[in-house]
Amino acid sequence: MAERVGAAVGREARAQGVHVVLGPGVNIKRSPLGGRNFEYYSEDPLLTGVLAAAHVRGQQAQGVGASVKHFAANNQETDRMQVSVDVDERTLREIYLPAFERVVTEARPATVMCAYNRINGVFASENHWLLTELLRDQWGFEGVVVSDWGAVDDRPAALAAGLDLQMPGDGGAGDRRVVEAVRSGELDESVVDTSARRVAALAALVAEPAGGFDVEAHHALARELAAECAVLLRNERGALPLAPGARVALVGEFARTPRYQGGGSSNVNPTRLDTALEAVRALSRADVAFAPGFPTDGSGDAAALRDEAVAVARDAEVTVVFAGLGAADESEGFDRATLDLPAAQVELIRAVAAVSPRTVVVLSNGGVVSLEGWHDEVDAVLEGFLLGQGGGAAVADLLYGVANPSGHLAETVPLRLEDTPSFLNFPGEQGHVRYGEGVMVGYRGLTTLGRPVRYPFGHGLSYTAFDTTDLRVVATGSDTATVSVTVANTGDRAGKHVVQVYVATTAGPVRRPARELRAFTKVALAPGERRTVSLGLDRRAFAYWDVREDGWVVAPGEYTVQVGASAVDVVAEAVVSLAGDDLVRELTLASPVAEWFTHPVAGPVLAEELARPSDGEEPRPGLQEEMLQMVGSMPMRRFVVDMGADIPVHLLERLVHEAARARADRVG
Amino acid sequence: MAERVGAAVGREARAQGVHVVLGPGVNIKRSPLGGRNFEYYSEDPLLTGVLAAAHVRGQQAQGVGASVKHFAANNQETDRMQVSVDVDERTLREIYLPAFERVVTEARPATVMCAYNRINGVFASENHWLLTELLRDQWGFEGVVVSDWGAVDDRPAALAAGLDLQMPGDGGAGDRRVVEAVRSGELDESVVDTSARRVAALAALVAEPAGGFDVEAHHALARELAAECAVLLRNERGALPLAPGARVALVGEFARTPRYQGGGSSNVNPTRLDTALEAVRALSRADVAFAPGFPTDGSGDAAALRDEAVAVARDAEVTVVFAGLGAADESEGFDRATLDLPAAQVELIRAVAAVSPRTVVVLSNGGVVSLEGWHDEVDAVLEGFLLGQGGGAAVADLLYGVANPSGHLAETVPLRLEDTPSFLNFPGEQGHVRYGEGVMVGYRGLTTLGRPVRYPFGHGLSYTAFDTTDLRVVATGSDTATVSVTVANTGDRAGKHVVQVYVATTAGPVRRPARELRAFTKVALAPGERRTVSLGLDRRAFAYWDVREDGWVVAPGEYTVQVGASAVDVVAEAVVSLAGDDLVRELTLASPVAEWFTHPVAGPVLAEELARPSDGEEPRPGLQEEMLQMVGSMPMRRFVVDMGADIPVHLLERLVHEAARARADRVG
Repeated sequence: MAERVGAAVGREARAQGVHVVLGPGVNIKRSPLGGRNFEYYSEDPLLTGVLAAAHVRGQQAQGVGASVKHFAANNQETDRMQVSVDVDERTLREIYLPAFERVVTEARPATVMCAYNRINGVFASENHWLLTELLRDQWGFEGVVVSDWGAVDDRPAALAAGLDLQMPGDGGAGDRRVVEAVRSGELDESVVDTSARRVAALAALVAEPAGGFDVEAHHALARELAAECAVLLRNERGALPLAPGARVALVGEFARTPRYQGGGSSNVNPTRLDTALEAVRALSRADVAFAPGFPTDGSGDAAALRDEAVAVARDAEVTVVFAGLGAADESEGFDRATLDLPAAQVELIRAVAAVSPRTVVVLSNGGVVSLEGWHDEVDAVLEGFLLGQGGGAAVADLLYGVANPSGHLAETVPLRLEDTPSFLNFPGEQGHVRYGEGVMVGYRGLTTLGRPVRYPFGHGLSYTAFDTTDLRVVATGSDTATVSVTVANTGDRAGKHVVQVYVATTAGPVRRPARELRAFTKVALAPGERRTVSLGLDRRAFAYWDVREDGWVVAPGEYTVQVGASAVDVVAEAVVSLAGDDLVRELTLASPVAEWFTHPVAGPVLAEELARPSDGEEPRPGLQEEMLQMVGSMPMRRFVVDMGADIPVHLLERLVHEAARARADRVG
Repeated sequence: MAERVGAAVGREARAQGVHVVLGPGVNIKRSPLGGRNFEYYSEDPLLTGVLAAAHVRGQQAQGVGASVKHFAANNQETDRMQVSVDVDERTLREIYLPAFERVVTEARPATVMCAYNRINGVFASENHWLLTELLRDQWGFEGVVVSDWGAVDDRPAALAAGLDLQMPGDGGAGDRRVVEAVRSGELDESVVDTSARRVAALAALVAEPAGGFDVEAHHALARELAAECAVLLRNERGALPLAPGARVALVGEFARTPRYQGGGSSNVNPTRLDTALEAVRALSRADVAFAPGFPTDGSGDAAALRDEAVAVARDAEVTVVFAGLGAADESEGFDRATLDLPAAQVELIRAVAAVSPRTVVVLSNGGVVSLEGWHDEVDAVLEGFLLGQGGGAAVADLLYGVANPSGHLAETVPLRLEDTPSFLNFPGEQGHVRYGEGVMVGYRGLTTLGRPVRYPFGHGLSYTAFDTTDLRVVATGSDTATVSVTVANTGDRAGKHVVQVYVATTAGPVRRPARELRAFTKVALAPGERRTVSLGLDRRAFAYWDVREDGWVVAPGEYTVQVGASAVDVVAEAVVSLAGDDLVRELTLASPVAEWFTHPVAGPVLAEELARPSDGEEPRPGLQEEMLQMVGSMPMRRFVVDMGADIPVHLLERLVHEAARARADRVG
């Protein structure tokens, strides 16, 4: 689906002479308050990367370049042009970079857009590690790095770091500085040449405007996409789907005036725009009443609008409340300060639920909103987020069961803002934002902390039921496995089920999240149909970023592969043992005593040495444990030289070399 | 009380020829798992600093030097000799340094002991900022910096950083390296001279062994101290105090074999050792049965011991269970992995509570233990922590009401380990521990997150009742205030009440904890007595550490002064407005646009400039708000030069100078 959407975007861009579309945005939703969350995919890097790579493939196949953005760690709007994201490398590698890495390595985007913010003090636009060592040297990116609009602070420094194209044009001021910098010797001319060649290659690559596009077909795709994306969060007492003959009332301005896209640079002009009101009226065989219910811009008489809506709801068999955030509540440029729906809407929902026999809430919002204060009083909740130009019709299709909901949450709906792992450190202060939760972003942190949520990542209901059986996990090497599982549609409607595969482990020297999404697929099943699905788990599904090795490591040990209906609801699990990496750590005289004694090369030799009785003393078998507890973290040199431990230094020096040799053998 | 204890320690040390006592330890209890928490005071820096300064005053008045330790940020045992504490300066200044600062500036300790760990990558023992710029230049320390045992990694580097005395002696190896370093020019000889003078001054300072000490009086003090420290957490159904004639059973080995001190270098030989069993038998007018109840060392038949204890409890009117952690469960050298009591003890408490008409639990533990799984089933809980050699008698005094409990929790008792703010980042990994919770340590984080706890910081019950009225807060300057409050003993027993004054504010550019302890005092009141207590709130009670100003700043605004029965239970509050600091920030062309427009000097000028209509254009009054939302964080130079904003650069340059002048005027 993402690839088809990318292709459609590509066709529309090509037809209009747009050479590069400035997307997709693959930043991680670190906080539900993030002002551009509506442009991003998820709080999970795998989900983000897989969807974005498909989008880029589809789009670029139409001859239109993509610009995967904002590289990197641009996870907030507050102070976005200055803030230093203070983050450790494991967190970058495991959370904030993998989506970029996947898009770059799998889909080869024409451009990467560098972010406004600093990373550990250095502007992304001047970050040589980011733009050259990581992006080009490690990931093999060969395209153009373009700046976010106004993100270049020092053009020569940016060029030197690997940024090719400053946007927007600055009337040549930056170019003049580049010329000066080359003349003064500050900047190597070859850097300019290389960068110019890249930009020229991009210019040569982009295709001329061509073709038109089928407005109707693209709109149908938008509608289909929206139907796949909306998430049915709650459905009690068979509230949904609606019977075609049911007496339905729609309440809420968003039914008539849809909130379907976000504000800022991502804003587009739709070719058509469906409204839920029209689409529901088209599907219903009964009269459909409507009342706007609440003011959308803060003006207007909320009480009168509510009273009118309550009167309408009183006469209906089912009332569908269209609630959500207005365009002014969220946009590029600022982060939200709350998850709450506007108070007038909360009051409306409660008032309607008090009188309507059945109440369904349809939500339109870019960032996650809280459902507290009204959730338990309504029968069903359909979370649409921002559904685009076909969203109105798609919602009608879902409400009446013309389409069967199959969307799942790509981010957690928390009970309280304070529960989100980034809460204490968002959006930072005085020029710095500390990524204090590390890799424990979103569901990773929440599941690790065992904190309850309203709806977990991965949650999503259907009008049919699915059954998951016969989970099998087989190691296919020291660091890979295959998962197979049988999924059955046990209900009486066709539907799509998402198989979510998580991996949980405590192996290795770093704290792992309780579970992490490592594979997923969506399966369409007719009523009664069953299918066995097979998914591969590659090395990265088990690896962590080891800062000492400066690389990915798969720790030997047990890995629990879990199939979840969400990040919280595990429906099947199986353990697989992996040999992992045969790691031999470097040893130096500064290495801690405990590391020496547990080292595969040095450990046995030292144990033997210590067990040898000194003159006139009995060997002390418990010495090692006792010692390691008190001085295990002491550098070996200090232990031997300063503390007088009875281990010859020449033996240690020999072991340093033996460890280095064994390490080289492993790597070799 | 702390000063009297310090004096007693000083007398004992002096009598035994000890010149410097290696304490007190003033590190903050960042996690309840910290292996040396029993040596430290609190999760709060004010409480820690006030108690430690009093201790040092008392001790040094006896002619025995103190060694305040472990400087700094040594908040865990795991990897203690290598780990880098990755922490921002605001957190250091507000949480981890104030206790050291107070002791150094108020009590002038003879020595400061530098810690094993690294701070932001640099060993404390080689940290020039820490040992010289901060400690000596800013705080005025004139004593000797001594290393923790084995904490020196590179003696010349340590000397250069400000470390005077390497411990333990290394047979002269370090001295030889110092001589080499001076000869090679790597180390300035004057550094060695200065350091040698400091050590010589310390040697001259210390008094010769003198006096004996009154063992009986010191033991009485230990008993008095213990009675003031134990915290009555729960007391339902009038379970405590016990009636002298009540038929009491004591259960649990700790009643007979007290757990009264922690393991590792803090271990001392007591002059006497009271047991609760003997002391209770002395106070009771009835027979007191005893059963050990559980094995203390993992061996023994837990079920048989439990059955015996249950039989004893069945015959008693009240059963007092002495539970807690064994010496092997916690010690210097390792951090705990759990808050749980040993399972055998939990089972014992539950079994006793099921049969005994009244159940009281007395706890002995260095680090906080969880009360979950049994708390609601018992009538009273007296948390003694480690009460020292007089603890057994003190517990008996408290149980029978000979003494009235007046201890309050110096750290939070959480519901779950996962709730503690440091949980995800303790004890770190791969050589680093990220202080991801920043200043939100302990109750600061828990109250800010609104997370429920079992017992909050500051909690503690009494056998009498206190009433707090007539709170008055008066500003005494731009950044100071006086608090007065009337406390009454409304019960029928003499008792001591702790007045806890917290300050809460949202003023300033940094996230403030929900409330912070800023003053406290303990008041003894006879039944019916009332007293008005006055406490000063100095500048620091309102200040935050501003990293941009590199100093303490009091933000103008409202401050809510709260008197709490604990960090959660506010019993009275009053708001005071403070003028605060008249801060003029430095402006540069790199300063963000929003800062220019809100600047007291530049803002009005720019607003006027923007309001001036350009040729042929109407002035746009909303421009400023709109612009600030989208580009407020953009550096002004980029905004004007690259983005073409219509503001003359010469105007900006003039304003930079005017701002600098105004700033200098303020500081001057």
